[in-house]
Amino acid sequence: MASRILITREGKRYFVKDISKDYHMEYGFISKVDLKKKQGQVKTNTGTELGIFEPSFSDLYRKIKRGPQIIARKDIGFIMAETGIGKNSVILDSGAGSGALCCYLANYAKKVTAYEIREDFLNISKYNAEFLGLKNLTIKNKDIYQGIDEKNLDLITLDLPEPWNVVEHASKALKSGGYLVSYSPTIPQAMDFANAILERKDFAIIKTSEVIEREWEMEGRKVRPKSRMIGHTGFLTFARKI
Amino acid sequence: MASRILITREGKRYFVKDISKDYHMEYGFISKVDLKKKQGQVKTNTGTELGIFEPSFSDLYRKIKRGPQIIARKDIGFIMAETGIGKNSVILDSGAGSGALCCYLANYAKKVTAYEIREDFLNISKYNAEFLGLKNLTIKNKDIYQGIDEKNLDLITLDLPEPWNVVEHASKALKSGGYLVSYSPTIPQAMDFANAILERKDFAIIKTSEVIEREWEMEGRKVRPKSRMIGHTGFLTFARKI
Amino acid sequence: MASRILITREGKRYFVKDISKDYHMEYGFISKVDLKKKQGQVKTNTGTELGIFEPSFSDLYRKIKRGPQIIARKDIGFIMAETGIGKNSVILDSGAGSGALCCYLANYAKKVTAYEIREDFLNISKYNAEFLGLKNLTIKNKDIYQGIDEKNLDLITLDLPEPWNVVEHASKALKSGGYLVSYSPTIPQAMDFANAILERKDFAIIKTSEVIEREWEMEGRKVRPKSRMIGHTGFLTFARKI
Amino acid sequence: MASRILITREGKRYFVKDISKDYHMEYGFISKVDLKKKQGQVKTNTGTELGIFEPSFSDLYRKIKRGPQIIARKDIGFIMAETGIGKNSVILDSGAGSGALCCYLANYAKKVTAYEIREDFLNISKYNAEFLGLKNLTIKNKDIYQGIDEKNLDLITLDLPEPWNVVEHASKALKSGGYLVSYSPTIPQAMDFANAILERKDFAIIKTSEVIEREWEMEGRKVRPKSRMIGHTGFLTFARKI
Repeated sequence: MASRILITREGKRYFVKDISKDYHMEYGFISKVDLKKKQGQVKTNTGTELGIFEPSFSDLYRKIKRGPQIIARKDIGFIMAETGIGKNSVILDSGAGSGALCCYLANYAKKVTAYEIREDFLNISKYNAEFLGLKNLTIKNKDIYQGIDEKNLDLITLDLPEPWNVVEHASKALKSGGYLVSYSPTIPQAMDFANAILERKDFAIIKTSEVIEREWEMEGRKVRPKSRMIGHTGFLTFARKI
Repeated sequence: MASRILITREGKRYFVKDISKDYHMEYGFISKVDLKKKQGQVKTNTGTELGIFEPSFSDLYRKIKRGPQIIARKDIGFIMAETGIGKNSVILDSGAGSGALCCYLANYAKKVTAYEIREDFLNISKYNAEFLGLKNLTIKNKDIYQGIDEKNLDLITLDLPEPWNVVEHASKALKSGGYLVSYSPTIPQAMDFANAILERKDFAIIKTSEVIEREWEMEGRKVRPKSRMIGHTGFLTFARKI
Repeated sequence: MASRILITREGKRYFVKDISKDYHMEYGFISKVDLKKKQGQVKTNTGTELGIFEPSFSDLYRKIKRGPQIIARKDIGFIMAETGIGKNSVILDSGAGSGALCCYLANYAKKVTAYEIREDFLNISKYNAEFLGLKNLTIKNKDIYQGIDEKNLDLITLDLPEPWNVVEHASKALKSGGYLVSYSPTIPQAMDFANAILERKDFAIIKTSEVIEREWEMEGRKVRPKSRMIGHTGFLTFARKI
Repeated sequence: MASRILITREGKRYFVKDISKDYHMEYGFISKVDLKKKQGQVKTNTGTELGIFEPSFSDLYRKIKRGPQIIARKDIGFIMAETGIGKNSVILDSGAGSGALCCYLANYAKKVTAYEIREDFLNISKYNAEFLGLKNLTIKNKDIYQGIDEKNLDLITLDLPEPWNVVEHASKALKSGGYLVSYSPTIPQAMDFANAILERKDFAIIKTSEVIEREWEMEGRKVRPKSRMIGHTGFLTFARKI
C-alpha cells in the first residue's frame, strides 16, 4: 500500500498511510490526486503548502507497532557500527519482541531470522516486518534457550533475561569470527553474561559499553544540552567466536 | 588479494594480508597451505593452535590507512541509525578525508560518492576504498563549496570546517525527505550550521546530538566503567530537505 | 522557631515547621509534648512509630522558597571543592536569585555578601537566609555591573546573563589568589566569559567544566542507571586573580 | 612554616614551601625579603614579575603526599553538598588512606576523626593533616570493622572494600538523621552495600549516584569538551539513620 509523508515548513510531519483516498488534517485536506506526487509540494484545499515525499525506512520505522519496550536507535547503530555487518551478512535475533532490532538489521543485511516465544509479541513483530516491507526477515515462534537451527551466522543479537543460557548454542551457530551481542538493561545481567563468556575458550570478549545520546538545544545563542535526557537504556556486550 | 584473521584463545588478533606465502609471527609460522582454510583451526610449526577466518568488513576496516583524523564508529552508527539509510540509498560524503565514513556507508548503501580537495587525502581514501573492495564508492577531487553534481540524494554527510557553505548546494542535490548531516568537533561550528538551517524554509532541523560511548571493565566482581574514556569526538546535526 | 523532621521506616520525611502545636499527618497526630524530643522515636495517636530528629542544614535547605531557578547542589559542591573555601573565607555572590548558592556558601564560610537587583528575588533570598538561620550572610539590593563595595575577597560567584561585565570589578575586589567563578546555562555565555578572562593579564583561567550526576536504581539485582536524568544545569568557569 | 604561591601571567604556579630562604626557579630567584609579602607582585633578580599570595587551602591540598589513590574533589564536593555538613558537624571517616577526604572535611566541619589500619597510610595521612594545619582532625590506628568509639555523629564516610560490615556499628554511632556515605569504585560493592541498607529498619536509603566531570576547552572558537576525560572514579551511596 503506497504511503506518503507530508511536512510543514516548521518540520511537523504527517504520515499518510493510504493514498487511495483524500487525506484530512488540521489545514484542510489533500486530494488523492495530489497524493500521487512522489516529491515536491502540494496544497490543501484551504491553500496551505506542504512538502510531500515517499517515506524513507526511518519514517516508516517511527510508525511501527509498539508491544514490549523497543531497543533505542542509538543502540542499534552501535551494534551495526561495531560488528560492521553489511549487505552480505546473515543474522539471528532473539527475542524479537516488537521486532525493532530485527527489522532494522534486515534493512541492512542479506538475511535475518528472529525467534520469539510469546505469541502476542510474535504477531506484533510479524506485523511490523510486513509493514516495513522486509522480505529477507523470518520470525519464528521458537525458544532460543532450546537451541539454534541456523548455521554459519555472522551475528547473533540477544535481548533476553538470561543471555548466558545461549552461549553454548551460539558457539555452534556462529561462523568463526562471528559476533555474539547481548543487550541488557541491568548490570548484573551484563556481568553474568560477560563472566560466562570469559570462562570459555571458544569466544573472545570484546567489550561492554553503554551508548549515551546527549541532545542539544540550538537556537541563536540559546545553545546548551537539553535539561532532560534519557539516562540509560542498556548495556551492550560484544563477544566473538574464535 | 585474499586475506585472513588469526586469533589466539586470549583474543589477540593477527591480520594476514597475503595468503600466497607463509605467515611468520611470535609463535612460529603458518604455512601458505594452511592459510587457505576459510574457518576453523590451524597450527603453527611449533604447535600453537590459532583460530582462522576470513576478515569481516570490520576486521578490514581496522586496517585502513590513517591520514586525517577519522570519525569514530559510534558516530557512524548513529548517522546510520538516525537516517535509516539502507541497501537502496544513494549518498554523498564530503570531505572524504581518510575515507572512513564514505567506506562505512558504502558497506550498507547502494551507491556512495565522496568529494575531497586535498590530493594526499584523496590518495589515502581511494587506497582504503580499494583495500575494502568497495565497488559502489566513487571518490572525486572536488570542492563541495563550489557545488554538487549529484541529484536526488538520500543523504549528504559533511565533515568540513564551514558546513554552512554547503546548505544551498545540498538543497538542490537532496531529494525531498533527504537528510543533511554535519559532523563538527566544536560547538561554534555546530551552532552556526544549525542557525543557517533554521533561517531557511527548505530544511527542517531535526536535532543536534553528541554520542558518548562509556566502556566498562567486566571481570569477576571488578565491574566498573573504565577510568579513562574518550570525552568527545564531535557534534552531529541532522536536517531534512522539505 | 524550633522545627523537627519525622521519618517513616520507608524513608518518607515530614517537616514539622512549628513544634509549639500538635502535628497532624496521614498517620494521625504527634502531640506537641512528643515533638520536643530532639532524637529517637515518637508515636502518633494511632500507634504509628516515626523517627524524630532536629533538621540538619540540608533538611532545611530542601524547604527554602523557590523564586528563580536555583543552582543544583552538585554544582554548589563542585564550586566548594574546587575553590577549597572554608571557615575563614569571605565571599561575594551575585545575583542572589532565590539565595540558594549564597545560603549554602554561608553554611561553610566566615562571611558571605550577596547582591540582587530585583526586589522580588531580594525578598525571597532574605526570607531563605533567615529561615536557615544564617547570621553571616548579608543580601544587598545592588547591581554588580556597577561595581563591588567589598575588598579582599576569597571568592566571587556569578550567576548572571553577562558575567563578562563583572571581570574588571572582580579584579579590584578579589585578593591575590582569589577565585572568580561563573555559572552559565548556555555555552555562548561561558565562551564569552572565558574569552574575556583570557584577554586579561590579572586573571589566570583555570577551567570550564560541567558536572553531571547520574543516579542509579539499586534494589536486589535491579541495578542500573535511572532511565531519566537531568541532562544539563550549567557550565562552571573558574578563574583566579593573580 | 609560612609558605607562598608565586604565579606567572600565564597562570603557571610555584609553591614556595619555606620563605625563610631565597627561592630559586627558572626565572632567577626571589629574595627571602620579598617572599614576606602576602599579596601583590614581586620581581626575580633577573626582572621577571610574578604574582605572590599566601596559599589557600586548595593550593596546599594540591601538595599533599599521595599514598593510596585519593578520592576526587568532585566526589568530595558532592558528599558535602548532599549531606549539607557545615561548621558544627562532627564526622568520622574510614579508612583514611592518604587522608584526602578527612582533611577536606576538616576544613569545613567542627571535628573530624579518621580511622586507618595500615601504619604506612596512617603516617601519610597524619603528615598531610599537619601540613594542612588542621587542628580539628584526629587520625587513629583503628579497624572500623571492629566498632566505632565515637557517638552522636552527623556523618560517617566509608572508603572500604566491604562497607556493609560497618552498617551495624554506624547505626549506633550516628545521631538520628545522621548520614552514612559509602564510596566504592565497583558496582558490586555499591550493590551489596545498598542491599545491606535496604534490609534494615534503622536506615533509609537515599540514593546511589556517580558524579562525572566533563572539562571543556575554551579558546576563541575552539570550544569543545576535552577529548580525554576521567570516565569513572566511584559510586557514592547515601543512607540516613532514622
